[in-house]
Amino acid sequence: MKIKVVKNVMDANDQVASDNRRFFETSGIVTVNVMASPGAGKTSLILRTIDALNMPVAVIEGDIASTFDAEKVAEKKVPVVQINTGGACHLDASQIKNALGELNLKTVKYLFIENVGNLVCPAEFRLGERAKIVVSSVPEGDDKPYKYPLMFSAVDAVILNKMDIMPYIDFDIKRFRKGVQGINRKVPIFEISCKTGEGLDRWVDWLKGLAV
Amino acid sequence: MKIKVVKNVMDANDQVASDNRRFFETSGIVTVNVMASPGAGKTSLILRTIDALNMPVAVIEGDIASTFDAEKVAEKKVPVVQINTGGACHLDASQIKNALGELNLKTVKYLFIENVGNLVCPAEFRLGERAKIVVSSVPEGDDKPYKYPLMFSAVDAVILNKMDIMPYIDFDIKRFRKGVQGINRKVPIFEISCKTGEGLDRWVDWLKGLAV
Repeated sequence: MKIKVVKNVMDANDQVASDNRRFFETSGIVTVNVMASPGAGKTSLILRTIDALNMPVAVIEGDIASTFDAEKVAEKKVPVVQINTGGACHLDASQIKNALGELNLKTVKYLFIENVGNLVCPAEFRLGERAKIVVSSVPEGDDKPYKYPLMFSAVDAVILNKMDIMPYIDFDIKRFRKGVQGINRKVPIFEISCKTGEGLDRWVDWLKGLAV
Repeated sequence: MKIKVVKNVMDANDQVASDNRRFFETSGIVTVNVMASPGAGKTSLILRTIDALNMPVAVIEGDIASTFDAEKVAEKKVPVVQINTGGACHLDASQIKNALGELNLKTVKYLFIENVGNLVCPAEFRLGERAKIVVSSVPEGDDKPYKYPLMFSAVDAVILNKMDIMPYIDFDIKRFRKGVQGINRKVPIFEISCKTGEGLDRWVDWLKGLAV
């Protein structure tokens, strides 16, 4: 009984996600669903990417509570809307559909959706995005791909952020890479630091490739 | 309809949690539910605490997948059992009840339950524990109490881990403390480093106070 209800919820979500996807494709907007643990650097990545991409961008910010991240993005003078989920641990396609009505997307080429900070639930809900990415960060440890296999298998790119503090952390980058490639063999892994800007160029090139 | 089903699930969980709680009380076992983001240092805290507490301890490890953490704990020669949740983003009371049957608890005084790495879902499920704690870590940033208010309001103690890398991170400790105290006025905040051992003594004293 319980499983049936959950399945219906997922089906309903997938229908709205398909609507969203059609809208993005006809509008020529590349939408990227950015997922991560709390504090891995989703907002920092989006802020850095807005500068480095140098194209018209919009942002949807998802959080359980607060508007801190949307306020930071608004300082970049790009269209932004905040979704507060109340208690829910992920964004869903209907929330995105509603948020689209609040954004001026006329000239927008890239839409970044910052999901709720969580390595579990967001991986299960399609939003209609062109690409899913996960931001993992060095202080979280090299075991994350082994512990959250669904997330790492669901994504089109992996960002490894906070490379600048690698000298102060016990982190085996070979073990991390092996873990990612064990479940998602060809996924690109971008090693970057949103603090120093190191490694952003390859990530931005990859993003530009999505628009082709 | 959906809400009703979810509510029934929660009620069923609470009944089993009450059973667990009674078992712990009659057995004289202090049970601590350890919650955190992925990679905040739950396992490191448990390992350090086993050494510092110097009393008979058992551990239940919760993860979506893998047994890495249970293997680390087993090296301490304490009873340990691993729960793999499959895809679920939190532990529930029935999983704990089943795990208790797998553990030799005869002389045990403290049972640590390491929940799934997630700042959202675990806060909503009682396990029958004596105390709930959250491990937050410096690299996650000082905004976590504002973004995950349910978690920070639900706990009996807050650990701020990875104090040793404070010099390399932009972290406003006053903002963090203010955020915690704004939603959970009297909760103790223990600033520690599981790497260096800094600050563990106050935390261990607090744990000993739970047994009184």
